[in-house]
Amino acid sequence: MLRSAFLWLSERRGVFNFVKRNGLARRFASRFVAGETLDTAIAAARDLNQRDITVTLDLLGESVTSREEAREASNQAVEILNRIHASGVRGNVSVKLTQMGLDIDRTVALENMTRILDRARELQSFARIDMEASAYVEPTLDLFRNGLHERFGDTTGVVIQSMLRRSADDVADLIARHARVRLVKGAYSEPASIAFPDKRDVDRSFATLAERLLAEGNYPAIATHDERLIRHVTEFVAHEGIANSRFEFQMLYGVRRDLQDRLRREGYNVRVYVPFGTQWYPYLMRRLGERPANVAFIVGNLLKETVSRR
Amino acid sequence: MLRSAFLWLSERRGVFNFVKRNGLARRFASRFVAGETLDTAIAAARDLNQRDITVTLDLLGESVTSREEAREASNQAVEILNRIHASGVRGNVSVKLTQMGLDIDRTVALENMTRILDRARELQSFARIDMEASAYVEPTLDLFRNGLHERFGDTTGVVIQSMLRRSADDVADLIARHARVRLVKGAYSEPASIAFPDKRDVDRSFATLAERLLAEGNYPAIATHDERLIRHVTEFVAHEGIANSRFEFQMLYGVRRDLQDRLRREGYNVRVYVPFGTQWYPYLMRRLGERPANVAFIVGNLLKETVSRR
Repeated sequence: MLRSAFLWLSERRGVFNFVKRNGLARRFASRFVAGETLDTAIAAARDLNQRDITVTLDLLGESVTSREEAREASNQAVEILNRIHASGVRGNVSVKLTQMGLDIDRTVALENMTRILDRARELQSFARIDMEASAYVEPTLDLFRNGLHERFGDTTGVVIQSMLRRSADDVADLIARHARVRLVKGAYSEPASIAFPDKRDVDRSFATLAERLLAEGNYPAIATHDERLIRHVTEFVAHEGIANSRFEFQMLYGVRRDLQDRLRREGYNVRVYVPFGTQWYPYLMRRLGERPANVAFIVGNLLKETVSRR
Repeated sequence: MLRSAFLWLSERRGVFNFVKRNGLARRFASRFVAGETLDTAIAAARDLNQRDITVTLDLLGESVTSREEAREASNQAVEILNRIHASGVRGNVSVKLTQMGLDIDRTVALENMTRILDRARELQSFARIDMEASAYVEPTLDLFRNGLHERFGDTTGVVIQSMLRRSADDVADLIARHARVRLVKGAYSEPASIAFPDKRDVDRSFATLAERLLAEGNYPAIATHDERLIRHVTEFVAHEGIANSRFEFQMLYGVRRDLQDRLRREGYNVRVYVPFGTQWYPYLMRRLGERPANVAFIVGNLLKETVSRR
């Protein structure tokens, strides 16, 4: 279905004309980005909490090239934690190591993450380390294994992409460490030597890794909008007698709200990833531009949701 | 200078408002992209040839996920070679392996590149294999070393990024193979474990690698707009008695046209990299979005050129 939708879209100049038209791009963005300020993000978080859904706030930003910018980004993450605490919102934060200085120096990123995690621990909160393109996987996991996890334990966690061939080994290692893991399919373009090119293999890998994390992991986050995989997970936990309190589903802000609510009604923990900030334009363009399928994916989801509401 | 320009820009919401306004984005694009069709690209190539500058045509496109799309992309590259030949334009092509199917399967990319290089050889032309983010460096060089270079020799070449720590070894290996190399600084965000985070180290690496390629390489392409490095190269070749015919400078379409013309007047070979095609929007957004410094770089170059023309 998505494949044919993609082919249909790829043949049409209209897709590019669509994102070119500024009004539409902004309207489109407001659907997937919770405003430009921390105030608007907290308001969005409150709305989600009303639906009994927890949040992860993510301040959109690009990779930084100076120590000052990295320091400023870590200050902003601390400020988000403070505001979450002060407002009583049920949520935590996600941060990117490239915003914390991983392109500058390992120790800069370590220092900034330590500042954030010190505060997260004080507030009994949590800060997830987001994953980026494959070149960042080893440096990110290295920082987590050799420094952050030992010191901060369950105050932090990482992300594993089922599309990557290495992920089975990484999951085994992270389970042995009793580390918190969010499982995603992965959205970066990667060479076939590193990632499974076939969507079916990515899905198969997701199902296998999800089972391992659910059976032996530490409160894994199953982050997908794929109904088939979600059903696989709910059937697996029912069959294995794994309590709903031992894991959570995660979805993106603005994507499949119907599914978010349905899973919550069925008694599963659901967390929504809420991106916000002024830098939504490059973020949205990358989402749409990097991988043409994302356009089909998002449009497809909009359609599906519209249909399911009728 | 660029650093302060970047800081100035990064503080201003205006930068994002700027790219948001569609009219400006399109006008901006037309400065750096030679139209949407092969006809417009051939016309741009003719204009450059008039200034005694050769070209490399690059059809903009995203990474593909199906064999059909990859096959179609290779057909388009063949068509570009045919049109260059038929029109008498002095130029060749650059192609991305992700457009040829490297995310699908190594052999798909090999097959499509073979088709392009067969035609390039028939026409006594050349097809450069572009370089992409660091995850693609080893798969790309592997395909070149184990397959393409042995079979097609000087009909093809690769790109080396001075920002990557591995590049000194890669250059030594490529020199030993007598392979054609384009040297660039590199524009992707990469972790400090893989790439030099300090701009000065990237420049130092560029100077060293350029010297090696000029002294021992096979018609290297020195691709930079950095006047200091260009001066370093011209002084080096003068001192070493290396003929101008043994290398070329390369610059991007629309960037520092004054410098392009000046170097040509001074007797150096100059080639301009000409991107074209309907997919300019994600290309431009990535250029601007992926690395904020690119905004400063481009705006800085526009200003410099404006000033130097007064």
